[in-house]
Amino acid sequence: MLDSTVTDRTQAVLDDLNGALAAGDVAGAARLFAADSYWRDLVAVTWNLKTVEGPAGVADMLSHQLAQTRPGNFRLQPGEVPAEEGGVITAWVTFETGAGRGWGLMRLKEDRIWTLLTALQELKGFEENRGKRRPMGAEHGAKKNRVTWKEKREAEAASLGYDTQPYTVIVGGGQGGIALGARLRQLGVPTIILDKHDRPGDQWRSRYKSLCLHDPIWYDHLPYIKFPDNWPVFTPKDKVGDWLEMYTKVMELNYWTRSEVTKASFDGDRWTVEVNRDGEKVTLHPTQLVLATGMSGKPNMPKLPGMENFKGVIQHSSQHQGPDEWTGKRVVVIGSNNSAHDICAALWEADADVTMVQRSSTHIVRSDSLMEIGLGALYSEEALANGVTTEKADMIFASLPYRIMHEFQIPLYDKMRERDAEFYAGLEKAGFKLDWGDDGSGLFMKYLRRGSGYYIDVGASQLIIDGEVKLVQGQPDHFEEDAVVLSDGTRLPADLVVLATGFGSMNGWAADLISQEVADKVGKVWGLGSATTKDPGPWEGEQRNMWKPTQQENLWFHGGNLHQSRHYSLYLALQLKARMEGLDTPVYGLQEVYHLS
Amino acid sequence: MLDSTVTDRTQAVLDDLNGALAAGDVAGAARLFAADSYWRDLVAVTWNLKTVEGPAGVADMLSHQLAQTRPGNFRLQPGEVPAEEGGVITAWVTFETGAGRGWGLMRLKEDRIWTLLTALQELKGFEENRGKRRPMGAEHGAKKNRVTWKEKREAEAASLGYDTQPYTVIVGGGQGGIALGARLRQLGVPTIILDKHDRPGDQWRSRYKSLCLHDPIWYDHLPYIKFPDNWPVFTPKDKVGDWLEMYTKVMELNYWTRSEVTKASFDGDRWTVEVNRDGEKVTLHPTQLVLATGMSGKPNMPKLPGMENFKGVIQHSSQHQGPDEWTGKRVVVIGSNNSAHDICAALWEADADVTMVQRSSTHIVRSDSLMEIGLGALYSEEALANGVTTEKADMIFASLPYRIMHEFQIPLYDKMRERDAEFYAGLEKAGFKLDWGDDGSGLFMKYLRRGSGYYIDVGASQLIIDGEVKLVQGQPDHFEEDAVVLSDGTRLPADLVVLATGFGSMNGWAADLISQEVADKVGKVWGLGSATTKDPGPWEGEQRNMWKPTQQENLWFHGGNLHQSRHYSLYLALQLKARMEGLDTPVYGLQEVYHLS
Repeated sequence: MLDSTVTDRTQAVLDDLNGALAAGDVAGAARLFAADSYWRDLVAVTWNLKTVEGPAGVADMLSHQLAQTRPGNFRLQPGEVPAEEGGVITAWVTFETGAGRGWGLMRLKEDRIWTLLTALQELKGFEENRGKRRPMGAEHGAKKNRVTWKEKREAEAASLGYDTQPYTVIVGGGQGGIALGARLRQLGVPTIILDKHDRPGDQWRSRYKSLCLHDPIWYDHLPYIKFPDNWPVFTPKDKVGDWLEMYTKVMELNYWTRSEVTKASFDGDRWTVEVNRDGEKVTLHPTQLVLATGMSGKPNMPKLPGMENFKGVIQHSSQHQGPDEWTGKRVVVIGSNNSAHDICAALWEADADVTMVQRSSTHIVRSDSLMEIGLGALYSEEALANGVTTEKADMIFASLPYRIMHEFQIPLYDKMRERDAEFYAGLEKAGFKLDWGDDGSGLFMKYLRRGSGYYIDVGASQLIIDGEVKLVQGQPDHFEEDAVVLSDGTRLPADLVVLATGFGSMNGWAADLISQEVADKVGKVWGLGSATTKDPGPWEGEQRNMWKPTQQENLWFHGGNLHQSRHYSLYLALQLKARMEGLDTPVYGLQEVYHLS
Repeated sequence: MLDSTVTDRTQAVLDDLNGALAAGDVAGAARLFAADSYWRDLVAVTWNLKTVEGPAGVADMLSHQLAQTRPGNFRLQPGEVPAEEGGVITAWVTFETGAGRGWGLMRLKEDRIWTLLTALQELKGFEENRGKRRPMGAEHGAKKNRVTWKEKREAEAASLGYDTQPYTVIVGGGQGGIALGARLRQLGVPTIILDKHDRPGDQWRSRYKSLCLHDPIWYDHLPYIKFPDNWPVFTPKDKVGDWLEMYTKVMELNYWTRSEVTKASFDGDRWTVEVNRDGEKVTLHPTQLVLATGMSGKPNMPKLPGMENFKGVIQHSSQHQGPDEWTGKRVVVIGSNNSAHDICAALWEADADVTMVQRSSTHIVRSDSLMEIGLGALYSEEALANGVTTEKADMIFASLPYRIMHEFQIPLYDKMRERDAEFYAGLEKAGFKLDWGDDGSGLFMKYLRRGSGYYIDVGASQLIIDGEVKLVQGQPDHFEEDAVVLSDGTRLPADLVVLATGFGSMNGWAADLISQEVADKVGKVWGLGSATTKDPGPWEGEQRNMWKPTQQENLWFHGGNLHQSRHYSLYLALQLKARMEGLDTPVYGLQEVYHLS
């Protein structure tokens, strides 16, 4: 039967791989990989997030790592049968290293490995207490002076940061900090999450009132507790806020609200983190510091002449609270990405007079089309019905090498362009400048490369097409008392100017909290080195500085959308746990720094 | 092949059943049932919770219901294969009625139906918005004066009970009220939950501090959001409280805290419910009133001579807050069931001098044994690994007819008695009076019949065995200034006397809130009519008055443990929804009242 042949062929490759790895035969292992192959490793073999390419790349990596991290025992995952389609065999695998257990996804072309994803799932001896390993809760038997769960929790919360020190401090308690905090809690890594807001979830609640998640719910789960199946497809921001608050509580995170870091420094051994905790000065000494302040964390605020004399209000998009005060007023929104569109639409709905200033071309996809064509196969009810769980979807997504991911993306966006041709013609007729990314690869590659440059249309584009939101092309040049003036002289009278001008590189946070020296040492955060707009080369192969060791010892960056916060928090948590336990964590291919911001 | 024979034989029975039902052939349908058979229907065919017995019972039920509720289209559930074991074929089935869709479990003996469970799952045209039917959340497109999710929620919460009336009021916001409230929310039935505490979950938080759930976590899920897999096996009370609070928030329930009903009355059309809402008097006019005040709701407080002159403290177990104030003090606990044991152990741990007064024999099982032997096949990690989801486990449990359930239970408890023989010998040697239920059927039957009479041992029994907690047999007779005195004259000096004397029938709540007349009209709540201790006959076949129509129009009782709150809340919610939508709900076999309390 065909199936058993496919299984046999896959098993033969795994046998050869196991044989070569067990024998320390780096060249033999490398020969199993195709000329144009990719091995992406998430912390298992490299103690890094790293993609190596071709037999030479595999050989180089294994020559450094094989003896140290000892990957092997690759097997077909029980219950999963390798499948062949279009000449490619796809197989779910499990494997071990000296320190841990992992799973992964392997693709074969002509019986050679084309792509291999290896992802660490747990550390031996430090497995999470879940399922069969869950705690008992009640301690059976009687003993004098028993301390209850509540008393323990309260004592821990009172002591941590004062009498005892956390191993890890996470700066920023949005979905990123919360997801990582939950992972670390599960792994027994004492952690404090610091956040400036009054309540967990206020990161979302405090934003403009019409905001909903732009990604569908199946893509947005946190670890451990999935959104229930009555949850809306696109969750309103306040509902996301409530969920994060409740999650923080039931996952028992040590989350300090109204807490801001004023200064942090590293002495080669531990950090000194000065915190203003609701007016109280607290000094923390964690070993590890994670900046989870958000890729949309630090606003780009252009400084333009005349701003100081403007009689209206100037806000960055992250400060804008919604349209309620602006009915009947003139509002100019500078920018044409997601926030700019959402804000314009909400202002129009509240009967403001709205003008959008487009500074450069923007990539637009309609939400429906993105859901169906872009995400549907992995994150949807249909995917779930087909057995593609969130966990599997994350792994399939992670298994596509960044180097060639755009090749998979381009046809999807071609399809969207065709499907929505009339819509795009309308936008162009309205004077809107469209793009599809430098190579036509669309939204997700823009997100990975630069984290900006797009709008997922949920209705604002029609307002542009219809002229309900006025559109002007140009660059803001200066302000006058009652207007913003573009460089071509166009004068836009305004009561409110919203600068939807985006956010800087996350190492800007390191400059603010630690020092410019450390920010420069770490370099630019995010992006792949794709040599496309706002993502200069050379090629990096992974996202710069995210979820992996940086050039600054014991400093880490965490963030991204809900999907990334969920999935990559595991690998960052395992790296921190391994270091806390004193395991050997030899890092292969620590990234070089080519750009400061 | 054997399997296909089993499937064919099962299919033949279903075909015959469908044929008879479609033809209105009551006698033909009844003939498909074995002489000793049981058809348990949960709201689908009978608009009641009802078990009919034998062909005659089936014929009587169908002669009333068939033309009205039109059950039919029984099919094997897709993906499930009937299995034969020990001469019994078990098959998961689906079916329809005129009003809805259901699923069930059928067992055949010699190709006749031995047990049939039919459970309504959804009403046609009123399906829940879950999965593929979930709401969009964001409303795409722009429209003037949009109202956000938060604004809608706030407006609803402000208006319901004032400008608009709820269809249903639930009195009591513990797990029962919350689970039912969530179901009704999903079904679009406007509902207010009233609870006297400060926060959801305080029902648990306010109890004695060592309390943990006595049932394991797999048995305890709420609908819609399962406990995550890191949750403890036996959840501490405060953690349960936090979960309930979180759940209430994210499920968007209209939950009024600090709210007590002072008076309720029914005028034949709607209820008038007087509420003290945190000091404000509010009058509600729901159509339906649900008492979810808890089967452990209304304390039995014995009145004994001399109580008024006792210089120490007298508390019902439900008022006892834990041992902290009682170190070094003398405490007498009257009673020997779950609460009595838990309280004694916690007091001993805090170095109080503790005496337990056993008034009658008690059934004791060790928690480990109960988990492994009693629940493991349905509610455990192993069960999950075997594909027995919580939903399936609930249905399997529900499919065993109460009439013969004890026959399945007796061997399990025989096994426990054998396994823990030494333990029981120790207890008897210490003078503890043991029983196993009137017919040896153990804990679960005691729970269903009388809701009391047992302790799940998590450690206190060893204190009894070791004499660390002193044990006295007898009946409390009267109090003196510094002691409680038993009827045999034994004088037990005490600083604190805890009356762990149990709780009354839930219709006591109806007497308090509505009238004695209504309480008497409804009669005793709970129990099966098994003619065993505290559960007088005649045989009822279902739990009295629970989750189903009562003799008082538009008055319902809801409650039980977390398992029952989860499972039976669905059927109660569907009954309420059907009435709200004006569907025809002909009730078969409305229960008679034989006992007032």
